[in-house]
Amino acid sequence: MTGYNLGIRLNTSADVRTRWRREAEPRFPVGCDNRLVLSFGVNDTTAREGGTRIAPADSIENLTSILEEATTWGWPVLVVGPAPIGDDQQNARTAALNDRFADVCQRHGVPYVEVFHQLDRDPVWSEEVRAGDGAHPAAAGYQRLAEIVFDPWATWLSR
Amino acid sequence: MTGYNLGIRLNTSADVRTRWRREAEPRFPVGCDNRLVLSFGVNDTTAREGGTRIAPADSIENLTSILEEATTWGWPVLVVGPAPIGDDQQNARTAALNDRFADVCQRHGVPYVEVFHQLDRDPVWSEEVRAGDGAHPAAAGYQRLAEIVFDPWATWLSR
Repeated sequence: MTGYNLGIRLNTSADVRTRWRREAEPRFPVGCDNRLVLSFGVNDTTAREGGTRIAPADSIENLTSILEEATTWGWPVLVVGPAPIGDDQQNARTAALNDRFADVCQRHGVPYVEVFHQLDRDPVWSEEVRAGDGAHPAAAGYQRLAEIVFDPWATWLSR
Repeated sequence: MTGYNLGIRLNTSADVRTRWRREAEPRFPVGCDNRLVLSFGVNDTTAREGGTRIAPADSIENLTSILEEATTWGWPVLVVGPAPIGDDQQNARTAALNDRFADVCQRHGVPYVEVFHQLDRDPVWSEEVRAGDGAHPAAAGYQRLAEIVFDPWATWLSR
């Protein structure tokens, strides 16, 4: 199995929607079991004058568009939800988006790995985010995130 | 510093030439010291009926095109040469391409990290490649490669 990490710092759902297909296709060899793991949302909820970087309705529309296009092409998708950071107001917006993302995925029959609430009550995550740049944890926090994602990801891979 | 690994299995210089700019640009924030590390060549020299996947003259043309375009945009480039694999005939073709790549880089004032000959006489590299899939080493071989590349890369980064 070969995995390609195509995450880009500060990308929103709109950025991912713009580039995901042109970056995924050269990495999807003909005849292989090609799959897509998506994760975005926190940068969407960053405050900007008059609102957020991406309005919630547009985040939903971006996710929906990607899911529908991937389904058309026959590429199974797993969505990993957005994580809490060190800003309570932004976290409230992210939590709301997390719920809406879960709904969209359920309606499309796409597995959604909800990480927000488990990380939000995890003292290691919160403390490492606070001690770091206010948004990213250190090794132990990432370890927690990996533990949450691992089983749903392995289950999805095996089906 | 943020690094993005955009390597794709089996890609030739032609594949990299096609996609490098559209994948690099979204990862090059405005106002940052954006730089490009290139490495390709082994897949170019794979035997195909009537020749190789990419003719040597086309490999040279692909490298030249990327160097000239990157220079136009002001992105410093470092080129890491192709490595030997477990096939003597292909290695002879790769060694020849390695020499030509070094020439192209010198003419363009771009640093070229020559890895072929050091790895070719390295027993750890050769043995791990042979014990593996015939093209890729294991951890100790990659460690050797990293040791060869590290100093020239750090020097290039600091200038």
